[in-house]
Amino acid sequence: MIAKFDSWLLKKIYQALGKPPYLISLWGDIQIGPSHAKAIAHVHIKQRRTLLRICINPELYFGEAYSKGDLTLTGDLVKLLEHTYRGIASSKRNWLQKLIVTWQARPCNNSITGSKKHIHQHYDLGNDFYRLWLDDKMLYTCAYYPTPESELSHAQTEKMHHVARKLQLKPGDNVVEAGCGWGSLALHMAKHYGVTVKAYNISHQQILHAREQAKLQGLDDKVEFIEDDYRNIKGQHDVFVSVGMLEHVGVNNFRELGDVIARCLKPDGRGLIHSIGRNQPVRMNAWIERHIFPGAYPPTIREAMEIFEPNNFSVIDVENIRLHYALTLLHWLEKYEQNTDQVEAMFDEQFVRAWRLYLAGSIASFSVGALQLFQIVFSPGRSNNISWTREHIYSSLEKTDEASWKNVM
Amino acid sequence: MIAKFDSWLLKKIYQALGKPPYLISLWGDIQIGPSHAKAIAHVHIKQRRTLLRICINPELYFGEAYSKGDLTLTGDLVKLLEHTYRGIASSKRNWLQKLIVTWQARPCNNSITGSKKHIHQHYDLGNDFYRLWLDDKMLYTCAYYPTPESELSHAQTEKMHHVARKLQLKPGDNVVEAGCGWGSLALHMAKHYGVTVKAYNISHQQILHAREQAKLQGLDDKVEFIEDDYRNIKGQHDVFVSVGMLEHVGVNNFRELGDVIARCLKPDGRGLIHSIGRNQPVRMNAWIERHIFPGAYPPTIREAMEIFEPNNFSVIDVENIRLHYALTLLHWLEKYEQNTDQVEAMFDEQFVRAWRLYLAGSIASFSVGALQLFQIVFSPGRSNNISWTREHIYSSLEKTDEASWKNVM
Repeated sequence: MIAKFDSWLLKKIYQALGKPPYLISLWGDIQIGPSHAKAIAHVHIKQRRTLLRICINPELYFGEAYSKGDLTLTGDLVKLLEHTYRGIASSKRNWLQKLIVTWQARPCNNSITGSKKHIHQHYDLGNDFYRLWLDDKMLYTCAYYPTPESELSHAQTEKMHHVARKLQLKPGDNVVEAGCGWGSLALHMAKHYGVTVKAYNISHQQILHAREQAKLQGLDDKVEFIEDDYRNIKGQHDVFVSVGMLEHVGVNNFRELGDVIARCLKPDGRGLIHSIGRNQPVRMNAWIERHIFPGAYPPTIREAMEIFEPNNFSVIDVENIRLHYALTLLHWLEKYEQNTDQVEAMFDEQFVRAWRLYLAGSIASFSVGALQLFQIVFSPGRSNNISWTREHIYSSLEKTDEASWKNVM
Repeated sequence: MIAKFDSWLLKKIYQALGKPPYLISLWGDIQIGPSHAKAIAHVHIKQRRTLLRICINPELYFGEAYSKGDLTLTGDLVKLLEHTYRGIASSKRNWLQKLIVTWQARPCNNSITGSKKHIHQHYDLGNDFYRLWLDDKMLYTCAYYPTPESELSHAQTEKMHHVARKLQLKPGDNVVEAGCGWGSLALHMAKHYGVTVKAYNISHQQILHAREQAKLQGLDDKVEFIEDDYRNIKGQHDVFVSVGMLEHVGVNNFRELGDVIARCLKPDGRGLIHSIGRNQPVRMNAWIERHIFPGAYPPTIREAMEIFEPNNFSVIDVENIRLHYALTLLHWLEKYEQNTDQVEAMFDEQFVRAWRLYLAGSIASFSVGALQLFQIVFSPGRSNNISWTREHIYSSLEKTDEASWKNVM
């Protein structure tokens, strides 16, 4: 009788998932989907409790069950998740979708104190941990691949040039960076474009690493790393840049962020914000919000306009490079998988699985179009100090690739 | 006594305008501003009635007074308007600004019947009239100037290539165009990119011209010009393109436009909308709305998202080329001034002045940043048929310039 119920429930789940090409099996002999040979992956749920929990809050408990080891996943995890996301999105609003929406993360408190806590939880996991799977320059944002065959490290360097070219950096410009990670973009801009940078970040671990790098590279007279919130940015600058911070700001604070930028940008200044985004407003994945990125929210373009519109900024250029983020994450995941032994030694098995799921899930989200990656270039509304065309972003590709600004002058 | 009042009023106006570098004089000897020699322009108001009317509804009656000849303008009209726009915008919300806002145009009825009437009023003024001051291909939208020194006709051809490259047109694609003007873009795409086009327009005069051109160029088997509203677009297409129509759609109809696009675009299709826009929502200039463009409204990016967001389109690329429109309009005005005799013969003196003011005012609006020009590339949210980078838009500049798709194959 109860086995019949389990089987019925599994069938309902499989249908709600849009009959994906992977196998789902339960304890005992119950299973659904294509045969082992034909399935792209295999989900095995070990006990009824896990199945029921997943039925109540699919997004949260699927992730928790996998990381705790209450269910196992074999085969291609990324493809499994891609099929799952596509399947749920394309079937009409069914019970699974409704449950996911019900339990999605609520908007978070990203006050100065709230942000500090949230950022600490993720970015202060230890530089040694991130070093295991990021590129050599420790860039933890979407890379820019000239071609899909490019390597990660090259693509990260190209991303920094891409950003610098969009901002038309010139020697002597003073740049302010909001959310500078481990400092590579700030150092890159100073080294290759002859600018000075004040770079803000509230992650203590990242700031320490960044300052060390500035000294090592002899750039500590050009780049100042400031351990402080973006809301405390001071001074007037030629350029405002922020790569991968907006996701942690929260829509409620966009208006204030816009005011900060309006205050700190000169009348003929230029700005760029690089952020994960969405096509439609969707609350954060419940599991990601609880276990990986507390306080995060990727906005739609419409939502992001709350930064620009009230302060009369002109949006000059928006580029969506979401497929580049799928590829970046794929390269991170590959490196991560090579170093899971070390991750386990630093944390535990559960952590290893949680971060695997987060990386694979992010790849799938970008590749199916559930997440976007926007680079938005803007300038004060009355400034005519804007580039005539965007050709300079592309024509200078080879010229600036290895050259520093000193060679150019 | 009354002369004192006139003088006091003139001073108040001059202050509210931000003390611009042009001279304003009234009947009698009253005047304000720099001397004749130093002034960039001279506004002369002939009678008290005109002055008072302008004080009540500045935007509407300034335009009406100038076109009727109740005030004269000498000197650089574009610079005069640039200083006026900048002056009003930078002074704190004063009485002049408040009056302008009070009288700004209300949202218009752009139903199928309403649109037909509005479009007829502007675009059916006669092809001979537009031929006097547009380029040889009759493009009545912002051109794309590879450099500011490029000529109008070249820049209009480049605009069409720019649009086609952004859409990655390939031979055999079937394209639907909403609001095709005199048909040049449709014919250009068919000729140079080997696509077939169904092009919609509700301006009868434009459609007649477009059909004639299709026959003359031997492209009537490739391009079909349909005299109908965009809301009646039928079929499934690889590409949706609309250049200079969105301004006439009205924000209230954006949702419906998005539904039309969603219905007519294939799952892996691409789209582009080219439109005048704003940084902040502002109602239409009262005079322009009444005398030049009934029913027009340039939206902000946030407002335009109402087309894309509800239908889960991915915005792939947004480019703002407002300075190109200032230059396009400058070239139109130059040609217009050379042909005012013919314009007067077609219409009258009042019409000549009204259209001069409209062209000069538009130049000023784009050059001071009161108006923007957005090109938005989008695709269905689940489609991965998007370009890897935007390099192809720039690298193919020379290759496609004169070549037709037949040479490429």
